[in-house]
Amino acid sequence: MADDAGMTTSPPANSETVTAAILVIGDEILSGRTKDKNVGKIADHLTEIGIELVEVRIVADRREAIVEALNVLRARNDYVFTTGGIGPTHDDITAESVAAAFGVAIRIDPMARALLAAHCERRGVPLTETRLRMARVPEGATLIKNVISAAPGFMLDNVIVMAGVPSVMAAMLEDATQYLRTGPKIYALTIALGCPEGDVAEALTRAQATHPDVAMGSYPTYQNGIAAVELVLRGRDQGRLATAARHLETDLKSRKLL
Amino acid sequence: MADDAGMTTSPPANSETVTAAILVIGDEILSGRTKDKNVGKIADHLTEIGIELVEVRIVADRREAIVEALNVLRARNDYVFTTGGIGPTHDDITAESVAAAFGVAIRIDPMARALLAAHCERRGVPLTETRLRMARVPEGATLIKNVISAAPGFMLDNVIVMAGVPSVMAAMLEDATQYLRTGPKIYALTIALGCPEGDVAEALTRAQATHPDVAMGSYPTYQNGIAAVELVLRGRDQGRLATAARHLETDLKSRKLL
Repeated sequence: MADDAGMTTSPPANSETVTAAILVIGDEILSGRTKDKNVGKIADHLTEIGIELVEVRIVADRREAIVEALNVLRARNDYVFTTGGIGPTHDDITAESVAAAFGVAIRIDPMARALLAAHCERRGVPLTETRLRMARVPEGATLIKNVISAAPGFMLDNVIVMAGVPSVMAAMLEDATQYLRTGPKIYALTIALGCPEGDVAEALTRAQATHPDVAMGSYPTYQNGIAAVELVLRGRDQGRLATAARHLETDLKSRKLL
Repeated sequence: MADDAGMTTSPPANSETVTAAILVIGDEILSGRTKDKNVGKIADHLTEIGIELVEVRIVADRREAIVEALNVLRARNDYVFTTGGIGPTHDDITAESVAAAFGVAIRIDPMARALLAAHCERRGVPLTETRLRMARVPEGATLIKNVISAAPGFMLDNVIVMAGVPSVMAAMLEDATQYLRTGPKIYALTIALGCPEGDVAEALTRAQATHPDVAMGSYPTYQNGIAAVELVLRGRDQGRLATAARHLETDLKSRKLL
């Protein structure tokens, strides 16, 4: 999602932080059968457009679990993005669970029905009762289109409901971006070092204390048992970010770590 | 984590379900900088040893966020596995947050200190104040060892605290398994079909109604725009699982879908 074409059509970015949460819905993720790829893609895209992802939850295909998580997350975040559970089968219960969470009715959306009907006609298959499940949308929702499959996602208040298949989710995320209010973009600088994390901890702690408006993190790696570490500095002001990085690099050089 | 060597040293499996949650701790996952690989590995391992993963949460490096999530998850699950935030730097606050969640003190663990001291001696570096942070463990915790880095994780009551670096997490998960009570293993069968999900939804819904003790899911994929679907049947009784699969396959064949 590095491609942020959606940004160009977004409302102008404002100065206050805009927060988001992700709710991944699906037994297949919890069983390990499917490895989630959507959280990382959505996280990259939100960082790109200046929305701060503050929490992620993964729950099973159980209505109570979905409703409970959704009501907590939508109350304390500007946006909630859900993935999974909007297909035609019996275990696809996201749309009805979202309607239940908001206490609104769910019904066949005329436009969603038209999209599915056209798709079925192209494929020469009937628009069955079961396929029509994919046109069920809560009252008051806006459809989120995707160019891959005919079945749309939707946005209800501050909740964006998307498919679980990564390519379809990506298309929906792109379409949804035009409706999102975005905040100041967060910039990041990385300093890679060929030493264990413990060697740089003191320098990093002092740098963080001196530059409280720049978030500093340290991420160790082990390549064939050899320890290395990457220091990541993140902030909204590019100037102060650069200054903090320069100070830290000077300190690291004085300790022969860089 | 398909290697379930840990199982052999586990307490005997019992007949009732054992549930678990995962709490991933780290700003780097939420910013998209790091793509989580641990949830899938832990999920595979838990399925392998007969523990049911029911919920996952990802939170930032903020004490209140960690404490809130941990207290909810540990109260309603048999086990909670945390990853991330146990390194030596200022943003590694998992150990103190777990201690705060349990309302116990945190202190330098003598054995953890010994492990770190030996490691530093091998490396010819001093055991600094900062490195000692990695020996800080809540009162009453059992150390979880790892063969990659010297710094241990720990288990406190039903909470298993592990590193975020995948190779280190995997080693800790292996060591922790000996302490886990396991439940009946869940078996899975997959039926792959070269048609869109919508074509099989009715057959799947009927099969699910006939075999309520077998969980049936359907997972669509799109290869270059071509829709396909995998049906996954999961259950604890291999005999009933096989029967349900046979019935479903017969139905699919009668519809020329298999």
